[in-house]
Amino acid sequence: IDSRLPDVGTTIFTVMSRLAQACGAINLSQGFPDFSPDPALAAAVSEAIAAGHNQYPPMAGLPALREAIAHKLEGEYGARYEPESEITVTAGATQALFTAIAALVQPGDEVIVFEPAYDAYGPAVRLQGAQLRGIPLRAPDWRPDWDAFKAALSPRTRLVIVNTPHNPTGSIWPREDMLQLAALLDGSRVCVLSDEVYEHMVFDGAEHQSVARHPALACRAIGVSSFGKTYHVTGWKVGYVFGPAALMAEFRKVHQFNVFTVNSPAQAAFATVAGRPETWRGLAAFYQTKRDRLRAQLATSRLRLLPCAGTYFQLVDYRAISDLPDVAFAEWLTREAGVAAIPVSVFSREPRDERIVRLCFAKQDATLDAAAARLAAL
Amino acid sequence: IDSRLPDVGTTIFTVMSRLAQACGAINLSQGFPDFSPDPALAAAVSEAIAAGHNQYPPMAGLPALREAIAHKLEGEYGARYEPESEITVTAGATQALFTAIAALVQPGDEVIVFEPAYDAYGPAVRLQGAQLRGIPLRAPDWRPDWDAFKAALSPRTRLVIVNTPHNPTGSIWPREDMLQLAALLDGSRVCVLSDEVYEHMVFDGAEHQSVARHPALACRAIGVSSFGKTYHVTGWKVGYVFGPAALMAEFRKVHQFNVFTVNSPAQAAFATVAGRPETWRGLAAFYQTKRDRLRAQLATSRLRLLPCAGTYFQLVDYRAISDLPDVAFAEWLTREAGVAAIPVSVFSREPRDERIVRLCFAKQDATLDAAAARLAAL
Ligand SMILES: CSCCC(=O)C(=O)O
Ligand SMILES: CSCCC(=O)C(=O)O
Repeated sequence: IDSRLPDVGTTIFTVMSRLAQACGAINLSQGFPDFSPDPALAAAVSEAIAAGHNQYPPMAGLPALREAIAHKLEGEYGARYEPESEITVTAGATQALFTAIAALVQPGDEVIVFEPAYDAYGPAVRLQGAQLRGIPLRAPDWRPDWDAFKAALSPRTRLVIVNTPHNPTGSIWPREDMLQLAALLDGSRVCVLSDEVYEHMVFDGAEHQSVARHPALACRAIGVSSFGKTYHVTGWKVGYVFGPAALMAEFRKVHQFNVFTVNSPAQAAFATVAGRPETWRGLAAFYQTKRDRLRAQLATSRLRLLPCAGTYFQLVDYRAISDLPDVAFAEWLTREAGVAAIPVSVFSREPRDERIVRLCFAKQDATLDAAAARLAAL
Repeated sequence: IDSRLPDVGTTIFTVMSRLAQACGAINLSQGFPDFSPDPALAAAVSEAIAAGHNQYPPMAGLPALREAIAHKLEGEYGARYEPESEITVTAGATQALFTAIAALVQPGDEVIVFEPAYDAYGPAVRLQGAQLRGIPLRAPDWRPDWDAFKAALSPRTRLVIVNTPHNPTGSIWPREDMLQLAALLDGSRVCVLSDEVYEHMVFDGAEHQSVARHPALACRAIGVSSFGKTYHVTGWKVGYVFGPAALMAEFRKVHQFNVFTVNSPAQAAFATVAGRPETWRGLAAFYQTKRDRLRAQLATSRLRLLPCAGTYFQLVDYRAISDLPDVAFAEWLTREAGVAAIPVSVFSREPRDERIVRLCFAKQDATLDAAAARLAAL
């Protein structure tokens, strides 16, 4: 059988979580919390089931949930999206990204990504018969080189995928970068896919640059967010997209034949929280405290801490400890030091000489402390 | 913006359910029950959440659920599938179908479908840059013409999509058809995608022909089933696929970047039932009784009842009532008679002169009785 993705293996998140489990290592690799969601949210699922939310919800999502999302987008970013035609609930952010790419990208098109790039983007683009153009981001601030971006733009460019707060680097784009992007795309037919799943995890008082804040981008953009990340339930697999009706119509054409619709009890539960700012306003401080706790404990270790402005990921440079390439180092760290991490080179197609791995700090303090003790002992 | 699916509108199921709601009609269109699942299954979701099943389950699905599925496939169909490499849990059957098509079909390939065909198949095939070849099925038995099938086979044929029990016709394939298909594909490189979501709804003592029963097909087939259909929870959006490891590896390459994984509390709940035959053995009798109730009440109406051997759909020929094409008749029926149905012509690309609509009988007796009274009055 001919493979559609001949050089694609199993995603690094599965590989590392599996290895962590096999070795009994503390799992700071795949990005998910090791603590429980708000009991009220859990109760809302049971209530939704009891209330009969067990059959197909509307294809685009429960109206109450879409209204809550619209309320949130307006309150947070000052942007109006119509629940009826401009918001769609998805089976997690990954399905949102995959579906948006399938809906917007034609065979022969080019898609610009900033690398390191989340590992779902590339295969989704290639499955459409489109070409990837990678713009490398460089430590320590991982800001894009806009001249390189300009050079990568071509008449065949169809889509630019942006991601701030950025996974895996923990960097964020300041306002200027959004304005740059908008200026460079002005007058073009290029769409933007904006992966904003860490939108509420920006630290030190910074402001998240949603495409929704920038009308010059919003008019050509589909934005993606994740209730799994915001409400500590990555396994419930609910996210959403927002964008202008013309793009959303194309999104839904594919969505309806990809998943049709999304788990109804979870949708009903999220409808009780998704419009209420108090349910996410504390997240930045919550994760900033965890970031600082991990950083404090690693400060005197031989791991060099890179800046972390957002997300729940901390990059560390391990050059002082090992010369291994990062994939091998991550495996060694899991097996020998009992801490699983994500190697960062797998998110770029070009070879990179960095010696960096990613640690997830969405963990209970006790988990972070135990992992930090192991890492500090290296 | 160029559309990937320029001539695709909103799926008929959304169109008709929306119209039913707008008109306050009894909704016998989209296929879902109007009754509740087993309270024990509902309780299992709450228990799973309380037990901490809230973060990413493994990409291929919870091991306990995959083991239960393997147990069921062995008990029902005498086929051994390895949970580790040959079974994957999906976000409903639609996602299973979409992902299998994306994983198996290359641009330029041909895919054979039997029409009427479920409306998700065609767009998924066309998104891969592949061509559909339709084999028309004809009332009243809707059995395939194997000479036509043979004529449609070409060196470019990559995939055949089969669906028994068949939606929308309610027909089933007897064993001979499976043997025919196996014989005609023998020695070829053609794969089979077997949509078996109504596997437990076969009536009058007939036996469901899963590909899993037929080693000569199973070796080249991905089978699809749906917990939503089997457990009366279409809104929970969990299904699964089974197939040989080589095909499943390709499936997972796409699955991991499409949805990554599936709602964990629902998976944990289904793990408590998916291996227990008593949870599905009564389904055939349950739905046969509903079928017979609906048929009895329509027997003296001006609607002509077509045979119904499986699924939870009853086809009716309305020629004695109206000359309208079926799409217009379904709309008229919803608006004027207060009963929503699905026109059948939308599942074929060739024009067809049938005057047939589909009624869903997965409804409480009171719903069926009320709908039947309206239909009998026509
Ligand atoms: C879909 S599993 C990966 C979760 C995640 O976003 C990450 O670890 O980066
Ligand atoms: C995915 S909505 C359609 C449900 C169904 O299988 C049908 O009505 O045929």
